[in-house]
Amino acid sequence: METTTSTTPTAKQPRNPMPLNGVDTPTLFATIGAVKAQAELARFTFRTTNQWQRGTHSRTRVESFDGAGGTHEHQRAFTYDADHPQVLVGRDQGPTPVEFLLHALAACLTAGIANIAAARGVTLHEVQSTVEGNIDLRGILGISDEVRNGYQGIRVTFKIKGDAPEQKLREIVEQSRARSAVYDALTNGVPVAIAVDAT
Amino acid sequence: METTTSTTPTAKQPRNPMPLNGVDTPTLFATIGAVKAQAELARFTFRTTNQWQRGTHSRTRVESFDGAGGTHEHQRAFTYDADHPQVLVGRDQGPTPVEFLLHALAACLTAGIANIAAARGVTLHEVQSTVEGNIDLRGILGISDEVRNGYQGIRVTFKIKGDAPEQKLREIVEQSRARSAVYDALTNGVPVAIAVDAT
Repeated sequence: METTTSTTPTAKQPRNPMPLNGVDTPTLFATIGAVKAQAELARFTFRTTNQWQRGTHSRTRVESFDGAGGTHEHQRAFTYDADHPQVLVGRDQGPTPVEFLLHALAACLTAGIANIAAARGVTLHEVQSTVEGNIDLRGILGISDEVRNGYQGIRVTFKIKGDAPEQKLREIVEQSRARSAVYDALTNGVPVAIAVDAT
Repeated sequence: METTTSTTPTAKQPRNPMPLNGVDTPTLFATIGAVKAQAELARFTFRTTNQWQRGTHSRTRVESFDGAGGTHEHQRAFTYDADHPQVLVGRDQGPTPVEFLLHALAACLTAGIANIAAARGVTLHEVQSTVEGNIDLRGILGISDEVRNGYQGIRVTFKIKGDAPEQKLREIVEQSRARSAVYDALTNGVPVAIAVDAT
């Protein structure tokens, strides 16, 4: 077990030209090539719509996104409920919003691991992760102005098995971290603008 | 429509002692009182476990969390798939990880709006929101080191209706922003440590 703190991406690797790990590696390389040639294809807008239900329970729909020069519908509309648990005076109709952050982080890093392993010709046997985050609720409950509202820290623990030496598997995780959209958003922050129509 | 940029929480409001909006307001106030009296009750640890499926598809379970002096099981285990869409060389078995970030943000702000409205004696009729985020995929595709991996910006648009003047409804949204765990995590960033077991 070793905690990754380096921010230096690992050196360029030879590219495996065959599909691997369920990753269509040739199409992935072709996609990267197309975006290199035409940068506007890389501009994506993701969106969700949320509807309050009652109490702390709300429901989100994920249906379409813009990118690669057009609007794309997901194969089906995805719907997710979120709520607070009973100990936080909710009805537990879904996970808390902050648990969805942990899911997003694990899923992003894991997708990257699969892609990078395929690109480097490494067959994966297993990728498991646990993500934990600590929050002191005195922030959101308005009890202390010295306590932040969000997570104070998040820990991700990966267990990874594949047909490569330990060091190479570690480098794949590190490269995924260095190219993860959610890791970047969560560690470096994102400007958020909120507009309100209350008429 | 007005974009909220203030970071000053609104002034203290009189507290409505009755349940409202599906929020058990008396229990909410009692919970805040209990945490004020015993700060260690506020220390929560949330966790998720994720298992790679194939390609960019992974599955997360959300089952239990620690807080209020003990471990709590959710009423049921929640399971969520994430994937990349076909245009990004996935199989679209779930939303992208970055779409789950938008869901988490809307759900957190909306839960806060319901709680704060109840505490202030405002009956809500409707709370809807759309969240959009822009990403330039040249970051995660490794095409440009000058483009960040994560969202460049996120815009939330609320439509809120209730039995209060427009200004009071706006103040409720603003107070929710000022006390949102996900808004804080996403705008200010969180330290993330990654450990790897590759043996």
